Amino acid sequence: MLRRRVTKAGLSGLLITHLPDVRYLSGFTGSSAALGVTRRSARLFTDGRYRAQAGEEVKGAKVEIVTGSPAVAAVQWLAAQPGMEFAGFDQAHTTVAELSRFRAELPSKLRRTFLTELAAPLIEPLRLLKDEDELKLMSEAALIGCRLFEHILNVIRPGIQEIEVAAELEHQARLHSAEGMSFETIVASGERSALPHGKATTTLLPRRGFVTLDFGIIREGYCSDMTRTVCLGKPKPEERNAYEAVLEAQQSAVLAVAAGVSCGEVDEAARSVLRRAGMADAFSHSTGHGVGLEIHESPRISAGQKTRLQQGMVVTIEPGVYWPGKFGIRIEDMVAVTKTGAQVLTPAPKALIEL
Amino acid sequence: MLRRRVTKAGLSGLLITHLPDVRYLSGFTGSSAALGVTRRSARLFTDGRYRAQAGEEVKGAKVEIVTGSPAVAAVQWLAAQPGMEFAGFDQAHTTVAELSRFRAELPSKLRRTFLTELAAPLIEPLRLLKDEDELKLMSEAALIGCRLFEHILNVIRPGIQEIEVAAELEHQARLHSAEGMSFETIVASGERSALPHGKATTTLLPRRGFVTLDFGIIREGYCSDMTRTVCLGKPKPEERNAYEAVLEAQQSAVLAVAAGVSCGEVDEAARSVLRRAGMADAFSHSTGHGVGLEIHESPRISAGQKTRLQQGMVVTIEPGVYWPGKFGIRIEDMVAVTKTGAQVLTPAPKALIEL
Repeated sequence: MLRRRVTKAGLSGLLITHLPDVRYLSGFTGSSAALGVTRRSARLFTDGRYRAQAGEEVKGAKVEIVTGSPAVAAVQWLAAQPGMEFAGFDQAHTTVAELSRFRAELPSKLRRTFLTELAAPLIEPLRLLKDEDELKLMSEAALIGCRLFEHILNVIRPGIQEIEVAAELEHQARLHSAEGMSFETIVASGERSALPHGKATTTLLPRRGFVTLDFGIIREGYCSDMTRTVCLGKPKPEERNAYEAVLEAQQSAVLAVAAGVSCGEVDEAARSVLRRAGMADAFSHSTGHGVGLEIHESPRISAGQKTRLQQGMVVTIEPGVYWPGKFGIRIEDMVAVTKTGAQVLTPAPKALIEL
Repeated sequence: MLRRRVTKAGLSGLLITHLPDVRYLSGFTGSSAALGVTRRSARLFTDGRYRAQAGEEVKGAKVEIVTGSPAVAAVQWLAAQPGMEFAGFDQAHTTVAELSRFRAELPSKLRRTFLTELAAPLIEPLRLLKDEDELKLMSEAALIGCRLFEHILNVIRPGIQEIEVAAELEHQARLHSAEGMSFETIVASGERSALPHGKATTTLLPRRGFVTLDFGIIREGYCSDMTRTVCLGKPKPEERNAYEAVLEAQQSAVLAVAAGVSCGEVDEAARSVLRRAGMADAFSHSTGHGVGLEIHESPRISAGQKTRLQQGMVVTIEPGVYWPGKFGIRIEDMVAVTKTGAQVLTPAPKALIEL
């Protein structure tokens, strides 16, 4: 399929250096690799540390172990293939310094012309649409997240440190066969709940106030992502009011998810609820993002985004409100776009939980 | 100090987008930021999620909250400063696509000339040499690693999964106030010890054989990194022989570390021991790497590297041998280059431990 796309894009070859793309296309999970693809063949380059692992993992490409840079080796291999004129490289994941180096290592007659920017991304459109196997893995990862949330409700109590909550969450994740966390676990309690990215600290959980948990696990390479905000003690009326508004915004955006709907419309579904509640300024980020082998992928669910959702996309829906020095709330689900609408992959309770 | 370097480099300004550099220079730990530096002032750009956090963390720069890309905002701010001619950008951390975008957002008369590649890295030479505060943090992080290793010796036993070992290690790391792990924890047991990067899997620890643990924690942004290989049951003579060779190679390289010595000489100190032992081919990677705010930094301790060690550098020394289908061994310390030689930051036992 990729080889067909290479042909269609008018390229004779393609250089792939972004590791999640390499993994997606070849199955290789190592931390150092590059893939060269021509209309006729594919070769994966990695270093000696991964000889055995590459042999086990890689499908659909020959493996070559190199001592120098795998990417440079891939460029040189591409240039040496018969009939090669232009190889595309991924300008979004190639640094200016790398491109200079690749060019410097090419034969001089190819130096200026051989590597060309892609007119449009070639791998991203493939990765954007998850197939059945991927959806199954992502659903499993998301369900593990839900079980961790249920478990952690028994742990959260006034006086323990945020990092103790994170530690327990991450420990349980491992015991549920996670390879790791998708990102640094957020446990933001009390006033810190007003930090949208409040990583767990040694702050003690308050006797009364919100605790926002935003976390995800990695399972067979695929990321999960979910957020819940719970309340220690009884919420004040303004807190309950804000929670209900965020929940309504979140549900409204989830309901808006369907094939053919633009990402901007989904964002607006959440934003308009918070605008009507007079909380537009407190919603200081976009509504969500795609997720898959990377925690942040296309599409972006933000204001004005014209990209249309398609069946097989998996996105997060995560509106939030934040008042510095006071409190914050965020609720997030992972949602798969289906034939008929959307499926929430993280069915953990969202009604306000008081602990 | 940075502003002096900007002047010395003949630049009127500098764009910093690599997040560990932004953190190093400003103290900001968020996941979205760019820093503009002129000869006279500095400004940090981030988005609305980080308003409160940036206010708390950033020192030495004004903070500006932007709705679009912080990097684009920084470029535009730089271009609007009085007397600006050329601003340097970091070609090693700027993608080809980002550079195109930055240029497209500049006024047309500046488009082709304003952003210039740096003749030499400006931030890396600063980060390379750790000051007293940094060394203290790194030493603390490394000592936590040693305590985790001691703890995990009580956990390792035949029949438990590699990921259970990783889970316990990571849980304890959190309880020792780690912000997270420096990289995906490696627990490679039995035949899997022959994978230099064998991330923990559901494989059961064997009744007899090696277990390689390679892990690190993050503390206030700084990474630790250490590896120990222990043996379940009694090692066979060839296993013990290989272990002793790796240990001698590792100690020989640690002893070679001193200001003024080239990285290639340190690599050779390890490699020559394994060559004499007839194991040169099994040592399939380089001897080590710098470590700090990132797990892999300059310098590289590999064959032929001419960079000379300087006081304040912190590097890993981690030779290993690997025989696919049989077993592997690696031993790694973090070592700081001092005035008079080297200080091992990870003083956990290295003599072969049989469990």
